Order: sequence, then structure tokens, then C-alpha cells
Amino acid sequence: MTGTLYGIGLGPGDPELLTVKAVKTLQRVPVVSFFAKQGRRGNARQILDGWLHAGQIEVPLYYPVTTEIPVTETAYGDQLREFYAESAATLATHLSAGRDVALVAEGDPLFYGSFMHLYIRLKERFPTQIIPGVTGMSGCWAAAGVPMTWGDDGLSVLAGTLPEADLTEKLRLGDAAVIMKVGRNLPKIRAALTAAGLLARAIYVERGTMPGEKILPLAAKTDDTAPYFSMILVPGEGRRP
Amino acid sequence: MTGTLYGIGLGPGDPELLTVKAVKTLQRVPVVSFFAKQGRRGNARQILDGWLHAGQIEVPLYYPVTTEIPVTETAYGDQLREFYAESAATLATHLSAGRDVALVAEGDPLFYGSFMHLYIRLKERFPTQIIPGVTGMSGCWAAAGVPMTWGDDGLSVLAGTLPEADLTEKLRLGDAAVIMKVGRNLPKIRAALTAAGLLARAIYVERGTMPGEKILPLAAKTDDTAPYFSMILVPGEGRRP
Ligand SMILES: C[S@@+](CC[C@H](N)C(=O)[O-])C[C@H]1O[C@@H](n2cnc3c(N)ncnc32)[C@H](O)[C@@H]1O
Ligand SMILES: C[S@@+](CC[C@H](N)C(=O)[O-])C[C@H]1O[C@@H](n2cnc3c(N)ncnc32)[C@H](O)[C@@H]1O
Repeated sequence: MTGTLYGIGLGPGDPELLTVKAVKTLQRVPVVSFFAKQGRRGNARQILDGWLHAGQIEVPLYYPVTTEIPVTETAYGDQLREFYAESAATLATHLSAGRDVALVAEGDPLFYGSFMHLYIRLKERFPTQIIPGVTGMSGCWAAAGVPMTWGDDGLSVLAGTLPEADLTEKLRLGDAAVIMKVGRNLPKIRAALTAAGLLARAIYVERGTMPGEKILPLAAKTDDTAPYFSMILVPGEGRRP
Repeated sequence: MTGTLYGIGLGPGDPELLTVKAVKTLQRVPVVSFFAKQGRRGNARQILDGWLHAGQIEVPLYYPVTTEIPVTETAYGDQLREFYAESAATLATHLSAGRDVALVAEGDPLFYGSFMHLYIRLKERFPTQIIPGVTGMSGCWAAAGVPMTWGDDGLSVLAGTLPEADLTEKLRLGDAAVIMKVGRNLPKIRAALTAAGLLARAIYVERGTMPGEKILPLAAKTDDTAPYFSMILVPGEGRRP
């Protein structure tokens, strides 16, 4: 009897935004695994704080690199591939021994993020179950109190890592938009929003639903500093009776 | 002292996919309100079943029209406007009397749906708080077990109500896609996906995470019948080390 791999969404940051199913599963499994930066406890582990109990086996998975090497370099891909293979092997040891494993993901597990890289390496060998989570973007627009999509509006979720021209074109053609992975891409994103005529509608959200949350119109943000947990929202303006 | 209006996301359908915060708030407020079709209990009320207790005031809001009049006719907008105004007035009576009101929404409250129409009519007069929810789309891709977005992938969420040419163009320009509001639009959506060369990648999900859930490749679906709770997923194919 092998164990089951659970992919569990932790939601946007507030620990009360885990689902009932996520909490029940987390408290039932013997092994809980999460990603973190070397030398840090990490945001995911912090969200879990009130939900785990003594006696559970914790398996932290430490990234070998995060922003030290550009993602476009071969060395980055090579190191990550090795890291994912080793991490999958670690979890496979528990699963093969019959222990259920919960591997958690910030937000929703199948929407960007590292969870998916282990999932595709393990899902043919072990039973899996995904427990969806509240995405970071839902947390951010709830915190800002802005309705995002009306009637026939489309929503374009874009990676802030795209080249400026691509961002501008996609913003021009869409209705509502969310730009994730802001960080050091903020000046480029601001330029793309300006070129698309959307700067006045854009809202900057930092650490949505977490301690230190900040929300302001992007036009009112005067500096170029944005942490990992930040995103831009452009609410839609579709049909509303 | 006026009451607070809570906008509460109920998640995709499985009652255990409510957040801890949603459950706590629902059990604490004296008034719980939800939308339904005339003569029906409705899906939202059904999700709430295990979470409410006797002694709470329930305020069902019955749509005057749903699919009897095309959304493009003036009569549709007029009737809905009147319905939203009356519904807002009903909730305002409770709020003015100092009673907290939870108005629930399937999925996430600020992502399409009727909640937003009452929210914008009440938010200047009363304190509000939004509790985000797991979206229908997260529930659907979790049920299907498909990772949706990798690396720099964009995600285009599109309304199946769009004209075929618009759908085709937006599908061609994007990476991953979700098409909501399928129902009677299915033949048109299938044609747009075929024109965009995406039919082979498309997954049809009906009633994701609910009783009667159905998941199959769209290419394998031979009929044109789709209920209200159905959507199409086109997973992204971005960078994966
Ligand atoms: C690798 S993606 C992971 C997304 C996650 N799986 C989800 O469902 O939201 C990380 C990006 O999500 C965004 N993000 C997630 N949670 C956030 C929050 N609470 N506040 C601001 N941004 C957030 C940031 O843009 C960040 O760069
Ligand atoms: C008016 S929108 C409401 C969206 C909701 N607020 C959310 O966050 O998902 C209704 C559409 O959502 C989609 N939908 C929502 N939940 C679903 C589910 N569990 N299974 C399939 N489709 C769903 C369907 O396409 C449906 O037509």
C-alpha cells in the first residue's frame, strides 16, 4: 500500500483562508512538505503554523537558487531540474513506505509555482489528490475591495517577467488584467500599463491578506521597490445593470 | 451602529472547500442571504446546508429572469436593475438595524456573479468585508488534475458569450485559457477552439467538485449539451525545468 500525495493550496496568506478540506487533510497526514529559501523558514511554513501538530514529520525543500542566477541561463534550469528530481525522490520514499504526504503551495497548487514540478514527477507512480486554494489574486482583489470582472469581461493574467512590448499588447487587447511576479519588473510593468492607457486604473497590492499588506493606486506609488509578494490589478469595466 | 456586509465566497461546490474564515463568519452572523432561481432552493443554499444553524435569518433573493429574456434586450437590464435595487434595500434594512449580513457567492465574490451588483449599491453606506473564495476554475482544474500555468504563461479567462471571432482571436493570442459560461454556447466555443488549433488540448469540466462531476477531453464529447456549471480548460505549455 503506497501513500497518497496531496497537493494543498494554502491561500493568499491569511491562515484562516485555508479551506476546511485543506485543514482536515493537513491535520490527518503524517508527512507535511513545503518549499523555502535556504536559511529561511519561509512563508508557506508560516501560514501552516497554527495548523500542524507535534508528531508530524516536516520535510522542508530548500531551493538551491532563487534570484542569484537569471532564469534564462542553462545553469538555472540544470540546478532546478536536479533539485526537483531529488525532492521528488525524498517524497517518494515516504509515499512508498505507505505514508500520505501533503505538499503545500501558496495560493492554488496548479496555478504557477513549484508544486506542479513535483506533481508531474510523482503522479504516474502514486495516487494523488489536489485540494484547490484561494489564489493570491483573489486575496488581493478582496483586500482591495474591487470587483474584477463584469458580464462579458475577459481576465488576462500576465507574468510581469514578459518583455514590455508583449505586456503592452496583451494589456491593450484585454479587459480586466492581473500582473503577477512584479518584484524587480515594476518599472517595465508601469511603462507597459502607461503605453496601454491603463495606468490610472491600476492598483498595486503588496502582501495581500498578510501582515504588512499595502494597497494603493499604482499612479500614487512613487518608488520602484516591490517585494516578491506583490501584484497589479486592473479591474474590468464590463456590463453592469 | 450599523451592521457589516460580508461578501463570502462559497468555493466551487464541495462544501468543504469553504475557507475557515467563511465558515466562522457564516456561523456568527444573524442574517444570511443568497441568490436563487424562482421556485428553486438553489446551488448556493445547498452548499450552505451543513454550515448554517437554526435561528439565523435567511434572505433568499429570487431572480426575476434568468434565461427567458436575452441579456441584450432592454427589458432584461430593466428587470435586473429593479431586482438589484430591491434586494439592496432588503439587505439595507437589516444593516441599518445593526445586523451583520453575509451575502454569499459561488466561487469567489468579486469574479463575475451577482454579488458585485449588490456590493456596489451598498458599499458606500455600510462597512463591508470581502472573504475571497476558491474560484470555480480552480475547483475544475483541481478535479481534472491539470497544472494550468507554467513559467511565463499567461492565463486568459474568457466568457463563452463572446462572438466566435473574438473568442478565436483571444485564444490564438494567449497561452492557457479558461472559458466560462459555456451552456448553450458550446457549439460556438468548440468552433473557436478548433479554429485556434486548440481543440486537442481542451478539457470539458461539468459540475467540478460537485455531485455529478464530469470531466473529459472536449474532443471526446459528442453532444452539444452543457449545463450552467460547465467550463473549458486549455492548460498552458510554458517552461518547466
Ligand atoms: C509563483 S506565483 C504563485 C501563485 C500562487 N500559486 C497563487 O495561486 O496565487 C507567485 C506570485 O504570486 C503573486 N502573489 C501570490 N500571493 C500574493 C499575495 N498575497 N499578495 C501579493 N501577491 C501575491 C505575486 O505576484 C508572486 O510573485
Ligand atoms: C457567473 S459565473 C460565477 C463565477 C464564480 N464567481 C467563480 O468565482 O467561479 C458562473 C460560471 O462559472 C463557471 N463555474 C463556476 N463553478 C463551476 C463548477 N463547479 N463547475 C463548472 N463550472 C463552474 C461556469 O462556467 C458558470 O457558467
